[in-house]
Amino acid sequence: MAKRVGRYTLRMENKPSIVGYAAICGKKEGQGPLSQFFDKIYEDTTLGESSWEKAESRLQTEAVTTALRKARLQADGVDYIFAGDLLNQCISSTFGLRSLDIPFLGQYGACSTMAQTLALSSIFVDSGAARRCVAVTSSHFCTAERQFRFPLEYGGQRTPTAQWTVTGSGAAVVDQEGTGPYVQAVTIGRIVDLGIKDAANMGAAMAPAAATTLLDFFHDTGTKPEDYDLILTGDLGQIGSDLLYDLTQREGVSIGSKHKDCGLLIFDRQSQDVHAGGSGCGCAGSVLCSYILNQVREGTLKNILFMATGALMSTTSSQQGESIPGVAHLVQIKSRG
Amino acid sequence: MAKRVGRYTLRMENKPSIVGYAAICGKKEGQGPLSQFFDKIYEDTTLGESSWEKAESRLQTEAVTTALRKARLQADGVDYIFAGDLLNQCISSTFGLRSLDIPFLGQYGACSTMAQTLALSSIFVDSGAARRCVAVTSSHFCTAERQFRFPLEYGGQRTPTAQWTVTGSGAAVVDQEGTGPYVQAVTIGRIVDLGIKDAANMGAAMAPAAATTLLDFFHDTGTKPEDYDLILTGDLGQIGSDLLYDLTQREGVSIGSKHKDCGLLIFDRQSQDVHAGGSGCGCAGSVLCSYILNQVREGTLKNILFMATGALMSTTSSQQGESIPGVAHLVQIKSRG
Repeated sequence: MAKRVGRYTLRMENKPSIVGYAAICGKKEGQGPLSQFFDKIYEDTTLGESSWEKAESRLQTEAVTTALRKARLQADGVDYIFAGDLLNQCISSTFGLRSLDIPFLGQYGACSTMAQTLALSSIFVDSGAARRCVAVTSSHFCTAERQFRFPLEYGGQRTPTAQWTVTGSGAAVVDQEGTGPYVQAVTIGRIVDLGIKDAANMGAAMAPAAATTLLDFFHDTGTKPEDYDLILTGDLGQIGSDLLYDLTQREGVSIGSKHKDCGLLIFDRQSQDVHAGGSGCGCAGSVLCSYILNQVREGTLKNILFMATGALMSTTSSQQGESIPGVAHLVQIKSRG
Repeated sequence: MAKRVGRYTLRMENKPSIVGYAAICGKKEGQGPLSQFFDKIYEDTTLGESSWEKAESRLQTEAVTTALRKARLQADGVDYIFAGDLLNQCISSTFGLRSLDIPFLGQYGACSTMAQTLALSSIFVDSGAARRCVAVTSSHFCTAERQFRFPLEYGGQRTPTAQWTVTGSGAAVVDQEGTGPYVQAVTIGRIVDLGIKDAANMGAAMAPAAATTLLDFFHDTGTKPEDYDLILTGDLGQIGSDLLYDLTQREGVSIGSKHKDCGLLIFDRQSQDVHAGGSGCGCAGSVLCSYILNQVREGTLKNILFMATGALMSTTSSQQGESIPGVAHLVQIKSRG
C-alpha cells in the first residue's frame, strides 16, 4: 500500500516494477539523436493508414503490443490500461486500444499524460488494486497541427517559442513482480495558471506547474536535486526549461546541473528546425520508454525524477481569450528498489 | 485494500463512504421531474458568464464546493480530484477546478465519467492511497451542441433517436470515514464496438458496452438482478435501454424490472421534447448525486448498481467514417457497509 509522505507525495511500498516498455516513432524522430533507441521507426507519417488519426492510433497499438511482447505478456494478463492523448475525446487511445479487450481508463493530462498514466498504474499495482497495468500515450505532428493550429497545406510560419509535436508513442507495463526499473514515489500536481495566453509558447505556460510539483516533491521528501541522477521534464523545451530554472532558483533550488528535457533530447534543434524543442504526449512517452528507461535498467541512471507537464487548454478556450492552465505530475524511478 | 473478485471486479474492503454530494442544473432540468432534488437550478444557461464553456466550468466549481460544504470539508482536505467532461481537452474541468488547488487527475470516459471518477476515487480511498477524493463531471447542452452537432442558431432538426444533453454537474466526496452511502464494488469496462456509426443514436452505440460490463459484474460476483434494488444506467435513453434488455436477455439475464436510466428519469419525454431521453456526463452525474444518493442515504434503496456508459468518438472520427466504440463502468453502492 502506498504511503503518504508530506502533503502531496505517495511513496510506493511494494516495488511496482516496469517489466516492459516500448517506443514507436515517426520519420523525423528517427532522424534525431535518439534514433537507435526506438523500437520501431515509421518512414511514412500515415503508417500506411488512411488518415493521420488512424496512424496515431496505430502508434499506440504498436507501443502497447511491443511493450507486452518484450515483457513476455499477453493483453489478457493486464488488469487495467491507463491511456490518453491530445486529440479531441482522446480518440487515438480509444481507437488504438479497442481491440485489446483490456479494462480501459481514459486519462486526460495533455502532455503530462505519460507521467499521469504511469503514476496511476504504479499506485494501482502498489496498492494491490491491480496485478499489472499498462500506461500509454501518443501524439502525432499532423493530427496536432490540424486540430490545434493550421492545416499543414497552409504552411504557416512558426514562432521561435513554438515546439514541434512528436510523432510517437510510449508504453510501459507495470507489474507487482519484476526486477525493475521500480517506481518509488509519485507526486500528483495541482493546476497552476499564471496567466500566460500565448498558445505558441506552451513551455512558458507549463513551467510554473513544473516548478510547483517539483518543489512539492522536494519539500515532502526532504530531498534536493543532488540526490538524483536526473530530473527529466516532459516537453518544456528551451524556453520552459529556462523558466523552470528561474522559478525553482527563486526558492533556493538549483536544478540546472541535473535537468534534461525530453523535448530537447529527441530532436537536434540546430539541424532539425524544431524551434524551442519537441512537444506532445508522445515526446515524454517515447523518450522515457526507450533511451531513459534503458539507462535505469542498466543502472547507468540509478535514481531519477520523471515529470511530464501539460497545458490544459483547447482551441475554444484560447479563442475565448482564456489563459493556459498547466499541470505537472512527477514519478520517481529507481534501478533498485 | 480492494480485493479482486473474478476477472473484472474489485470489492472494496474498507467501506469508502460518500460523505457529501451535490447536483447543480440548468433551467430545463429544473422543469423536469427531479427538480426538487437538485441543490441549485440556474434559470439562465450562461450562469451569468460570458460563454457557455465558462458556464459549464462554473457548474463544476459549484458542484464541488457545494458537495464539500455539505460534507463540512474544505478543498485543502482533499487529496485528489478526479474530473472529466465532454469538451475538447476537458476544459470544463480544468478551468472549473483550477482555483481549488487540489491535486488534479483529468479523466476521459465520455458519458461514463461519473462512474469512472467515482470508481477511481473509491479505489484510491479504499487502498489508502488517499484519505479523501472528489469525483466530478459536467455537461452543458449549448457547449455540446456547438462542439458535436450544429450551431444552435441553425435550428437543426433532431432525429427520433437523438438525446438531449443535460446542463448539469454532479460531484461526490469519497472519504475513508463516514456513515455511507458506501461503495462496495467496482467493475471497469472494456471498450466494445459493434459497428454502430450513427452519431445521433448514442444509446445504440453504448448498449453493448453496458451489457458487457453488467454481465461481467454478475459473473464475477455470482449475483443476479434480483439481488439489487436498482440497476441504474447513465444515459442509454429509451433506445439504448431497450437494446440493453435484449442483449442481457440473450444471456438469460432479465434486468427490466430493476432497471432505470438517468436519461429517462431527468426529463419528462412527453412534455419536454427530448426524444430518446437525456444524455451527457452531467446527466448521470446530477441524477446520481441528488435523487438517487438521497434514497441510498435514507435506506429506501439499500443496494444499487450505478453504471454509466460512454461513446468514445469525436466529430473527426465520425467524419472519417469510423464506428463508435463504447465503454461502461459500474459502481455498486450500498446504504450499509
